[in-house]
Amino acid sequence: MDIRRILKVFPFMDNIGEENLDYLIKSSKIDTFKTEQEMVKDNQRCLAIPFLLSGRIRVFKISKEGKEITLYKVNRGQMCVLSAICTLGEANYDVIVQFEEISDVLLIPRSAFVYLNDNSKEWRKYVNENVTSLLLSTMQKVGSVAFDDVEERLYQYLREHSKDSNIIKTTHEKIAMELGSAREVISRKLKQFEKEGLIKLKRGKIEILYKM
Amino acid sequence: MDIRRILKVFPFMDNIGEENLDYLIKSSKIDTFKTEQEMVKDNQRCLAIPFLLSGRIRVFKISKEGKEITLYKVNRGQMCVLSAICTLGEANYDVIVQFEEISDVLLIPRSAFVYLNDNSKEWRKYVNENVTSLLLSTMQKVGSVAFDDVEERLYQYLREHSKDSNIIKTTHEKIAMELGSAREVISRKLKQFEKEGLIKLKRGKIEILYKM
Repeated sequence: MDIRRILKVFPFMDNIGEENLDYLIKSSKIDTFKTEQEMVKDNQRCLAIPFLLSGRIRVFKISKEGKEITLYKVNRGQMCVLSAICTLGEANYDVIVQFEEISDVLLIPRSAFVYLNDNSKEWRKYVNENVTSLLLSTMQKVGSVAFDDVEERLYQYLREHSKDSNIIKTTHEKIAMELGSAREVISRKLKQFEKEGLIKLKRGKIEILYKM
Repeated sequence: MDIRRILKVFPFMDNIGEENLDYLIKSSKIDTFKTEQEMVKDNQRCLAIPFLLSGRIRVFKISKEGKEITLYKVNRGQMCVLSAICTLGEANYDVIVQFEEISDVLLIPRSAFVYLNDNSKEWRKYVNENVTSLLLSTMQKVGSVAFDDVEERLYQYLREHSKDSNIIKTTHEKIAMELGSAREVISRKLKQFEKEGLIKLKRGKIEILYKM
């Protein structure tokens, strides 16, 4: 296993102590997941906690009618908090954990994760920071879904996704799934934004014309 | 300080070890909060983590327009998870933590909380279970607010609150604040439920006529 690669993506692991790091490396493995592959589905339990070396995970809920809403994403250098917390708190959950891109994943077994959490303060610090951040952003999401209409949330989505580039590669369908809305609603709102001169709609992408 | 009362409400503290318990008792204090008193408001930090010996806390968000939505409640025998996790993860939050009833509270200072978390496995277990449970219920809430219309959520609210008694003491205003809706909408839906013979509306209470 390429330890240098792991420490480059998860520098905090350099501070958990030599013995703990050895134990982590010995008990874990790296695996590659394909796009749209599912890690866990409704009410199954994670056998290992995924730490992303590359790629991206999307964690979402799906309604009885098949509508989706994204709860959060796990990017390179992050762990899947829900897997971690459900291991520590011994609970199950009814969400879907799906790879959005081809991803290299460091899989740390439940028992090793619990051991490291019990034996390293640095480890706990990393876990606590990640859990806190997810809990706060999930509460933020409750507020946003309850208070903001789709137009406002769509605007926020475009702003967040145009930080690095003024081209957002996505489909109306995917945005609807992110926001827990219907494709038709998103298409209508996007066309309205286009009419107002904010964006230009192209096949499979949206060009942002105005700094949002 | 009445240790027996504390252990009766928080039996897990009996298992954190004698030294840790002594330390907890020495560093903490019990305080009484009045109805509607606020523990923290937008972006302030908790100086101590509240453990409820009696009473109830409501944690909620408020929109720019003054609409409210309840994020969670803290009951007797529970701690305020958000205060705990923001202490461990060193973050701030923009919610309101308000006492819903007169409450006796065991206040454990931040430093003592961190110390106990570092030194007691039982303590961590309690914290992890509570954090997990809140994170899962908050994610549930995102799904419910995104997918279910007000009627469905109102129905769920009535079902949850009529488990122990078929009389729910509350106002339309309060239900609206729970669900992040407007009083007029809730009143209209309740009247519709009454017409359908599900409930009977009385001053300051709702009688459930049908097992929901």
